[in-house]
Amino acid sequence: MATLLHVPLSPYCRKVRIAMGELKVPFALEEEPVWERREAFVALNPAATVPVLLLDDGHALAESQAIVEYLEEAAEAPFLMGKDAKLRAEVRRLALWFDNKFGSEVTDYLYRERIMKRMAGHGPPNSEFVRAGVLNLEQHLRYIDMLLEQRHWLAGREFSLADIAAGAHLSSLDYMGAVPWVDHPPAHEWYARFKSRPSVRPLLSDRVPGWRPAAHYANLDF
Amino acid sequence: MATLLHVPLSPYCRKVRIAMGELKVPFALEEEPVWERREAFVALNPAATVPVLLLDDGHALAESQAIVEYLEEAAEAPFLMGKDAKLRAEVRRLALWFDNKFGSEVTDYLYRERIMKRMAGHGPPNSEFVRAGVLNLEQHLRYIDMLLEQRHWLAGREFSLADIAAGAHLSSLDYMGAVPWVDHPPAHEWYARFKSRPSVRPLLSDRVPGWRPAAHYANLDF
Repeated sequence: MATLLHVPLSPYCRKVRIAMGELKVPFALEEEPVWERREAFVALNPAATVPVLLLDDGHALAESQAIVEYLEEAAEAPFLMGKDAKLRAEVRRLALWFDNKFGSEVTDYLYRERIMKRMAGHGPPNSEFVRAGVLNLEQHLRYIDMLLEQRHWLAGREFSLADIAAGAHLSSLDYMGAVPWVDHPPAHEWYARFKSRPSVRPLLSDRVPGWRPAAHYANLDF
Repeated sequence: MATLLHVPLSPYCRKVRIAMGELKVPFALEEEPVWERREAFVALNPAATVPVLLLDDGHALAESQAIVEYLEEAAEAPFLMGKDAKLRAEVRRLALWFDNKFGSEVTDYLYRERIMKRMAGHGPPNSEFVRAGVLNLEQHLRYIDMLLEQRHWLAGREFSLADIAAGAHLSSLDYMGAVPWVDHPPAHEWYARFKSRPSVRPLLSDRVPGWRPAAHYANLDF
């Protein structure tokens, strides 16, 4: 069985965990304290980031998008990228949007400042960064609302990696109670559908030592 | 014929231009002053970034990796991603490494500070950023040297998107004379091979108004 080296609340690890759940690929989880930069870990991935997927033969795959593309290609019934070429381009555009744009404009400012810094013992969050993250999150939620005015899922009619990437980031922020769902009914309704998927359930029992999740975090009817 | 909206020295645009050249897809080029955030352009790509590929039917594709995957899937003889699944994962890992890690650690500090700021009229470069970019570039060139100790091209035996992504970033820096090739013989030899590919030639005549390229920029025997 493959082993995923991960950090529980990392959106990039969550993206791979959910994708594996959707594709019904069994895997074991192993926590990796990335901030320690263990020599054996850096040898597996010189970027020293999680997720890293260790295959049965010892081969290591890194970078969430490369891992998911690998899993999708290997799947008996691939469905995470969409069926036609233009839809696949839209799914990848949105997955990259959340991984990179949402990642640097929101997740880095909120999750990294508030949770990763604490786990790594790097002191309190920078309040200006947190403020920027909150403002940027509002813009991104508006974009999600706008997409959902025309689409049932983020990239189109079907659930796809776009929903997984977006939901992975938002679920980490939701753990912290940082998402103003009440102001964004379309995003709220979409996230409730996302959260009730069997692939997402295991994430709802993740815990960060010393930081209890928001009361509604694991609640499907929030 | 498809039209690529681009900025001449943008590594992400160069990545798509080279990929289209390799796949022998004809296309027209149109410069897009991204810093103006034209309404019609933002409607095509809400991230307001180049490259954007306009297809014949008016459909717009954004995000360089999504565009290249689309082109590779549509190609009669796809070859940019590698043939077996593990190689494809390695090609994508490295393409993402250069787009994201090299991008934020080197390109943002050097190209964006020195060229994009000038084109957008945003003042002189921040010298601390430039210094950080120079230090980070040294680390990345060492990583490239290390890969090339074991491989003919960056991801393995064959030329791939990993070489295109890396070469696209380095070619923008090379325009500015910012790459210390002489200290990195393996990277130097690889880049000479990269530069002599027919797909790369058109980039060697790009010019930024008011900024002449380094003397060796277009020289294949540099």
